[in-house]
Amino acid sequence: MHGKVALEEAFALPRLQEKTRWWAGLFAVNPDQHAAEMTDVGDIRLGYMDEHGVGYTILSYTAPGVQDIWDPAEAQDLAVEINDYIAGAIEGRRDRFGAFATLSMHNPDQAAAELTRCVTRYGFKGALVNDTQRTGADGDDMIFYDGPEWDPFWRTVTQLDVPFYLHPRNPTGTQYDKLWAERKWLVGPPLSFAHGVSLHVLGMVTNGVFDRHPTLQVVLGHLGEHIPFDLWRINHWFEDVKKPLGLRCRRTIREYFARNLWITTSGHFSTTTLAFCMAEVGADRILFSIDYPFESFADACRWFDGVPVNLVDKTKMGRDNARRLFKLPPFKDSETPVDA
Amino acid sequence: MHGKVALEEAFALPRLQEKTRWWAGLFAVNPDQHAAEMTDVGDIRLGYMDEHGVGYTILSYTAPGVQDIWDPAEAQDLAVEINDYIAGAIEGRRDRFGAFATLSMHNPDQAAAELTRCVTRYGFKGALVNDTQRTGADGDDMIFYDGPEWDPFWRTVTQLDVPFYLHPRNPTGTQYDKLWAERKWLVGPPLSFAHGVSLHVLGMVTNGVFDRHPTLQVVLGHLGEHIPFDLWRINHWFEDVKKPLGLRCRRTIREYFARNLWITTSGHFSTTTLAFCMAEVGADRILFSIDYPFESFADACRWFDGVPVNLVDKTKMGRDNARRLFKLPPFKDSETPVDA
Amino acid sequence: MHGKVALEEAFALPRLQEKTRWWAGLFAVNPDQHAAEMTDVGDIRLGYMDEHGVGYTILSYTAPGVQDIWDPAEAQDLAVEINDYIAGAIEGRRDRFGAFATLSMHNPDQAAAELTRCVTRYGFKGALVNDTQRTGADGDDMIFYDGPEWDPFWRTVTQLDVPFYLHPRNPTGTQYDKLWAERKWLVGPPLSFAHGVSLHVLGMVTNGVFDRHPTLQVVLGHLGEHIPFDLWRINHWFEDVKKPLGLRCRRTIREYFARNLWITTSGHFSTTTLAFCMAEVGADRILFSIDYPFESFADACRWFDGVPVNLVDKTKMGRDNARRLFKLPPFKDSETPVDA
Amino acid sequence: MHGKVALEEAFALPRLQEKTRWWAGLFAVNPDQHAAEMTDVGDIRLGYMDEHGVGYTILSYTAPGVQDIWDPAEAQDLAVEINDYIAGAIEGRRDRFGAFATLSMHNPDQAAAELTRCVTRYGFKGALVNDTQRTGADGDDMIFYDGPEWDPFWRTVTQLDVPFYLHPRNPTGTQYDKLWAERKWLVGPPLSFAHGVSLHVLGMVTNGVFDRHPTLQVVLGHLGEHIPFDLWRINHWFEDVKKPLGLRCRRTIREYFARNLWITTSGHFSTTTLAFCMAEVGADRILFSIDYPFESFADACRWFDGVPVNLVDKTKMGRDNARRLFKLPPFKDSETPVDA
Repeated sequence: MHGKVALEEAFALPRLQEKTRWWAGLFAVNPDQHAAEMTDVGDIRLGYMDEHGVGYTILSYTAPGVQDIWDPAEAQDLAVEINDYIAGAIEGRRDRFGAFATLSMHNPDQAAAELTRCVTRYGFKGALVNDTQRTGADGDDMIFYDGPEWDPFWRTVTQLDVPFYLHPRNPTGTQYDKLWAERKWLVGPPLSFAHGVSLHVLGMVTNGVFDRHPTLQVVLGHLGEHIPFDLWRINHWFEDVKKPLGLRCRRTIREYFARNLWITTSGHFSTTTLAFCMAEVGADRILFSIDYPFESFADACRWFDGVPVNLVDKTKMGRDNARRLFKLPPFKDSETPVDA
Repeated sequence: MHGKVALEEAFALPRLQEKTRWWAGLFAVNPDQHAAEMTDVGDIRLGYMDEHGVGYTILSYTAPGVQDIWDPAEAQDLAVEINDYIAGAIEGRRDRFGAFATLSMHNPDQAAAELTRCVTRYGFKGALVNDTQRTGADGDDMIFYDGPEWDPFWRTVTQLDVPFYLHPRNPTGTQYDKLWAERKWLVGPPLSFAHGVSLHVLGMVTNGVFDRHPTLQVVLGHLGEHIPFDLWRINHWFEDVKKPLGLRCRRTIREYFARNLWITTSGHFSTTTLAFCMAEVGADRILFSIDYPFESFADACRWFDGVPVNLVDKTKMGRDNARRLFKLPPFKDSETPVDA
Repeated sequence: MHGKVALEEAFALPRLQEKTRWWAGLFAVNPDQHAAEMTDVGDIRLGYMDEHGVGYTILSYTAPGVQDIWDPAEAQDLAVEINDYIAGAIEGRRDRFGAFATLSMHNPDQAAAELTRCVTRYGFKGALVNDTQRTGADGDDMIFYDGPEWDPFWRTVTQLDVPFYLHPRNPTGTQYDKLWAERKWLVGPPLSFAHGVSLHVLGMVTNGVFDRHPTLQVVLGHLGEHIPFDLWRINHWFEDVKKPLGLRCRRTIREYFARNLWITTSGHFSTTTLAFCMAEVGADRILFSIDYPFESFADACRWFDGVPVNLVDKTKMGRDNARRLFKLPPFKDSETPVDA
Repeated sequence: MHGKVALEEAFALPRLQEKTRWWAGLFAVNPDQHAAEMTDVGDIRLGYMDEHGVGYTILSYTAPGVQDIWDPAEAQDLAVEINDYIAGAIEGRRDRFGAFATLSMHNPDQAAAELTRCVTRYGFKGALVNDTQRTGADGDDMIFYDGPEWDPFWRTVTQLDVPFYLHPRNPTGTQYDKLWAERKWLVGPPLSFAHGVSLHVLGMVTNGVFDRHPTLQVVLGHLGEHIPFDLWRINHWFEDVKKPLGLRCRRTIREYFARNLWITTSGHFSTTTLAFCMAEVGADRILFSIDYPFESFADACRWFDGVPVNLVDKTKMGRDNARRLFKLPPFKDSETPVDA
């Protein structure tokens, strides 16, 4: 398919190339290639985009990024540096690249201000933030964004009318030691990522964030971080047990998925799971994405281009939903040279 | 359907009736009814079974049960008491009731010995154990069963040739405080149960338990605790990334699901999710269950009896898979008086 | 769901009550009730609509209707009578009822003229025509509408910008004797209906009707008369074999389904088949319908209201797709008094 | 997958090579290759089988074959010739090839006798017969096998305990002229094949063939010739309308699919439709097949080997169901040199 839009696509600062290379050694089969692809926001990426029919990419800073920095000042400085850098890097290619703001999440007002700066000054398409901000003297604590103290931030997000992508990060601190250290192969995409994000976003649901900010649009990767699998079970327990016992949600979990949540295909190129999500979440709330360079354009795009789905929904998921959500101009056929 | 078999069905000791009633107050809309149903292993249950076409129930002690007791001696005493009690309680109704052994999981050899006693002396159908054993001076630590020190236990399980049901329990200690305290409505069926069990059983996979005990049969409730949703993603990361980086599993995750794992419908009466699991896991490894008295016979059985699935797979999932796995006698039409 | 729209809903002329009663004897378990419901376009129907959350019904003359009359003049007279009658009958209830034009299909120009009259004078919502017009001296021949001689008619349909519902009728004549007489229980919904309509509409595809009239919108009942089942196979043979051998279709069969065809749930209340059609055809092209009084409001609406599908697609299929296709006013919550 | 079994795989008599070549010109993009592949039952086919992991093929004479010959004596002679020929041709390769008997269907006793000869003398695996036998002075009539006069034949089939494959043939005579001549691109796989076979086999159902021969096993190609799509609708009309009005079937249509019918993937390599059939018919009644040389080994096998289905069902559909149904020896890993 021509003109696909991809939105969980990572980059790193060139000045941190060495760290990126070291980090890649922890999970990439080819760390050199990974580091090169991560740092590039130019020809490598555009080459893949052209080859595989991706018309537009929204770039975001790679995890854990600023959420790994427990010193607030340092975190804020890095966020600003990243935002300024990527704004400049994509300046000449606004037809093919957009960006999500990187935010320090130590302070709601500061995060709101930086998001405002990025959207109004740079035209960023929203924010991508990693699941929980490391905090505390030794970085062993976590800030969640689902408490009432984050209302000013969510108010700004909805006022700016931009989506918020909640991205995973690795477990750290006590949480890591108790649960993940002895089963380290499950850290990341196999399990821990979905554990973190599903807890966080369902915390936003049960703590009333979407009730207080009913137009808030939150994007989840990896086809929804396990939650669609359990929509029936969650709905049953919320409606039949938890609400009678005191849970205060204005809507049902299915309604939040119909009004506030989006899921992307990033890193989850499963025909069966996509079909399931189309049934449970609906193609109108599903967005193509890759998770490059953790995943390859080839794997993602060949799968999506060939996935056995009707043309109407395929076009929406691959392109048109994202164009509507991010207010992108309509697809022009010349955008990518590939007829996939 | 006549003669359904149900296998995640809880009971509690009558002498703990008051505690059961108190506990029920935490999550049951009608705690009195819940406590009464939980304590009964006779007429109430048989009435439901007859009304809803359940021919055979395998009973197990309600969570968190013995896994909540961090004193090893106390835990062992309670396990033995429970097993002796339920053996006696079902004695006259072996045509309709079986039992899973309750085990203290402080010590692998002790757990193996008690399981052996239950299977050989009482004819129990296997064991149902809750996710992690509380341990430590103040119960703040957790014992997982996925390390090599548990090999003697798993050897016994496979020698006895009985299945092992890995059941959830609530998060406790630091784990609870850090993650769940401020989003308490997600504790239990909406999220924490699946987090716990999926981590534990995938830990068994990556730590080689199924490689060292290739005939081990582990049963998971709630349609697989989210894992089937991510089979593609887990398989991709295990095979394409983690194994090249050092993960030592002999088989693929899909092979473990085909050889070692079973999932039940307990507490997850979703037509869409069942259809998805039939595609990803296969009807041959799916077993009907209710999760009574946390769920009702009516909800579970009306759903299952009416679920739009071909007759071959429906009969297998509702009855014949369980009869084969637990070596039950073939279904006789007179077993339940209902034509559901 | 409130405000559902239903569009394969039959009526008959009151003056033919006796014939309707006789006809009902051939296939209705309760012919009296059937005949009464068929003839009513008032309180019986509105009662069902209110009870089951149907906000709007588009009425059409029951099959085989005018397509059973092989005398052209008689056919035309009856069509005009039916159209005048139903226009009058729904006059005071335009908030709840619309109508499809009934057309004699002996002559394309005449059919076009009558459709124009119905749409411009009476505000009819399109036409519903039964599969093939009986013709010939003894009614043993059939007129299909897929040849080039029908271009003037299709031109009018697209100029009026109204949908065309292709509805089944029973096999007659030689076709009946050779194939259906000895397997009469398959006549109608079990098989012959889908055979007739699928042949006809795919004839329109392969004979280029949709290429010459690219904005033509054709609606098929019964979830698409078997065609969605074979989209892969049809597409494969059209694209890989038939086109190389001379088939001249501008588009693929999947594209015609994305641009020109709609399917309704009339008479096919299958959760599994609906889910399949959502994957192969897409919820954007699926419309709720009942097939009353051949099917009951209760069966159709209880099924649809409870069908396990995400809320976005359910609302589209139940209501919003039809409102858009037929240019109905947006749903007002007061339309039906039921909260289904 | 190693060792797949394929069972709708056509051959033609070498002495009719010219006719095969001419016939191929009607539907094959490359008629020379088609004719060569059709006539070969040796190296070409074995080469494909080895390359694509097909361990065993059951050969059958290409359609319309003997069912196209309206002279009874000529038809019988040809059937005998074909059976003797293929028995000899596969003699040295019984580890890789089996055969279905070719039968003249002018006379039930004669057909039964020839089937008996083929099974007892040659070890054939059953019969594959094309939908309706041409008959009458000019071949314009059709013999169906669903009337009571065919009971002696079905009795023989069940006594021999071999499956019967009901294969399509093209419409001929009046049936062709009235319906198909002007929409010729729909003749064959796009539509007419399924029309013919679905009518025929459902005629067997409603005319009581399976009630009188309850162990009869009938195999349908192309994922069931549209019937699975409508199981709900057929079941509803049979049970709720037709039986009250006089249809005499002992069982429901779903029960016949669970006891008497099998479907194969021949010529229908659709992931979505297969998933649907697994839900409606069940993997235990689905058999891999290709439809070679009308379809290619590459298309069929690459699709099936990669189809996203759990390993248990995939193994059953690809190999083990057929081995059980046709009493083949269990799969030995050395059977095919391919690790697909």
